[in-house]
Amino acid sequence: MATVSVSEIIEQVSRFTSMKEEITRLVYEQSWVDAQRYIGTLGAKLGMNVAVDEMGTAILSVRGSSEEKSAITIGSHIDSVINAGKYDGVYGVAAGIVAVSELVRQYGQPRKNIQVLSFSEEEGSRFPMNFSGSRFVINQVPENMDELKDNQGITFSEAKQHAVSQLHETLSKGQAYEVENFTEIHIEQGPVLENQKKQIGIVTGIVAQKRFSITVNGQGNHAGTTPMSMRKDALKQAMVLIGRLEEIAQEIGEPLVFTVGEMHVFPNVSNVIPSQVVFSIDIRHMDMNVLQLFEDRMLAQIRQQKQDRLMEILVDCWLDEPAEKTNPELSALLDQICKEKNISSHVMSSGAGHDTQIMNLVAPTALLFVPSRAGISHSPLEYTSAEDLNTGKDVLKEFIYRLAY
Amino acid sequence: MATVSVSEIIEQVSRFTSMKEEITRLVYEQSWVDAQRYIGTLGAKLGMNVAVDEMGTAILSVRGSSEEKSAITIGSHIDSVINAGKYDGVYGVAAGIVAVSELVRQYGQPRKNIQVLSFSEEEGSRFPMNFSGSRFVINQVPENMDELKDNQGITFSEAKQHAVSQLHETLSKGQAYEVENFTEIHIEQGPVLENQKKQIGIVTGIVAQKRFSITVNGQGNHAGTTPMSMRKDALKQAMVLIGRLEEIAQEIGEPLVFTVGEMHVFPNVSNVIPSQVVFSIDIRHMDMNVLQLFEDRMLAQIRQQKQDRLMEILVDCWLDEPAEKTNPELSALLDQICKEKNISSHVMSSGAGHDTQIMNLVAPTALLFVPSRAGISHSPLEYTSAEDLNTGKDVLKEFIYRLAY
Repeated sequence: MATVSVSEIIEQVSRFTSMKEEITRLVYEQSWVDAQRYIGTLGAKLGMNVAVDEMGTAILSVRGSSEEKSAITIGSHIDSVINAGKYDGVYGVAAGIVAVSELVRQYGQPRKNIQVLSFSEEEGSRFPMNFSGSRFVINQVPENMDELKDNQGITFSEAKQHAVSQLHETLSKGQAYEVENFTEIHIEQGPVLENQKKQIGIVTGIVAQKRFSITVNGQGNHAGTTPMSMRKDALKQAMVLIGRLEEIAQEIGEPLVFTVGEMHVFPNVSNVIPSQVVFSIDIRHMDMNVLQLFEDRMLAQIRQQKQDRLMEILVDCWLDEPAEKTNPELSALLDQICKEKNISSHVMSSGAGHDTQIMNLVAPTALLFVPSRAGISHSPLEYTSAEDLNTGKDVLKEFIYRLAY
Repeated sequence: MATVSVSEIIEQVSRFTSMKEEITRLVYEQSWVDAQRYIGTLGAKLGMNVAVDEMGTAILSVRGSSEEKSAITIGSHIDSVINAGKYDGVYGVAAGIVAVSELVRQYGQPRKNIQVLSFSEEEGSRFPMNFSGSRFVINQVPENMDELKDNQGITFSEAKQHAVSQLHETLSKGQAYEVENFTEIHIEQGPVLENQKKQIGIVTGIVAQKRFSITVNGQGNHAGTTPMSMRKDALKQAMVLIGRLEEIAQEIGEPLVFTVGEMHVFPNVSNVIPSQVVFSIDIRHMDMNVLQLFEDRMLAQIRQQKQDRLMEILVDCWLDEPAEKTNPELSALLDQICKEKNISSHVMSSGAGHDTQIMNLVAPTALLFVPSRAGISHSPLEYTSAEDLNTGKDVLKEFIYRLAY
């Protein structure tokens, strides 16, 4: 039986890219087909059973002796954002494959079935939908999925057909086992572990998230001829509001995160007073009540500003996702393993979405993080040291051992 | 000799537009040719001498009995911004023509030469240069003027040639008289006269103006995974800076105007912390020392923020125009005329640029305003009542009478 390291798999997959000079591997592109075929072929070489489902998720499994229908399940995704790093998603697939193959080599057949899922898509960077790989496994795909189009006008159905049929030329068609529980290991994509000098993050949940679009309507006018006291400056009002929201966020305190990432000013000309400003608000916290508290205070502030200045301020909440809590017993087991192995760990929530939140709808889940240098992700600068990658793989391996042997 | 009212001329010129459903009359477009030909033809019908200079400025003049070389000069411009109102520029040309033709009808030949200049261009809405009509009259055009291109790639020289040659088919070539003094009447383009319930603004000068581009460099990061305390949020820093600049502007007080009209956020995505924000600052005041005071305090604030947050903040001053003061004696005469006629007037500065500031480089000038409804200009909503238009014309007429008869 061949052997392979986590870093080798990550390096190999990083070469499958649609863009020279950068890593871009959108679902169902040729680079994606090549990457998923590599994963399937690697699993076969390592002696695992390999199948590819209708969505193109690769299932690398080892049959257990107990003849159950379900499997201890590990997984993450193989697709990337545009101009991505090497580690996001791929690390979880690589660590799962290496951990399982090492276990089989050391301890032989497990008691329970084990499967590693290399999900087809998680990022939502090609079609206006994300998590389609894990959604298919839990049988909860959106009704209109097949008709969704990418920005070239290609439908999800066409792209999928073309890509997955190529995989089925060399890899068997098949379906994932029923999921007994689901574990994902992922790079943190934030600076907390590095900052706290911890090797492993044990994630208790993925935060609830709300996004708003705020529109402030003032009155456009000549920047030279309109005295300051006679203005209805939409940008100035927006600034006052955002400044107050910053204060509210500070009053509530961490781990709440509050971000204004997007802003559009109209007409956006240096000598015209802005008539309209539209900006985004993104707030996240594990506790939905904290988000509600922020929202209530935000709305009170907006009501007050509208009265003070006779300006129109419109609020549109266009995203409202509940938190997903991982399984406390599985997290406790991870914590115990870290302690036994003298690996430093930090209990935290995830501010980013992961396949775990989808799998959590049907099964107990666990989620592990390894440090991201400077917290950078979705960038060519994304980096985690080989040592940290291996520490994560070792914790995952011990965890699978306890669950499946 | 025919008669015509100011409102009739304005209505007629407003029909010369390049865009259906809106008034857009950029220099040297066909609509501009038609408008300037109309002005020239109207002058001839009213018994004035008409010539068109190389730039396409129409010169409508009446020879005085004293045989001097110079002329009492009235003027404004015939070109418009994109999607303009009817009054900006055109009013000054119309009021000049009506005032002079009424004077000649009532009092016969003046002692001094009088000329009304319908300048070819002031707005700078087609080529990257403004005031080309008045600059040519004072013999101070930029060296590279002929090579400047519009956004279709047409050079200033080509466009001018094509348009002005059409005018010269029916109107004589000629040059303006030397300018003894220059008077312009214009809509205010601001809310002060309406607000103060005054019929006439007597303008003592055009403000000094500085414009800056400020760049704040922070660090882009994931909005979900980066704790608030570990962020370098460029937008947040920009907000703090702008908030403080608002305070500085208030401390200095009116008539200083301070405007942030333009803002660009990068990467401008709702779930990414802004890595860079670029915004404009526009400050204006009659006293350059006041602008310097604002700038000094701004730079001190920026130095402090750079130290506090270890962020890069870059300042680029890309426009620095001195104030232009109109002639106190001419203003005093205007004031006296208003008092005698029981017309309410307000002494003020202009926050917008006008041909007067160019003519002021070579001759004494006077500048008069009439009210703009709600201060709106550069918009189809631009409006001044026929009554206010006529009051302005009457003051201008009396003023020319005192100077030229």
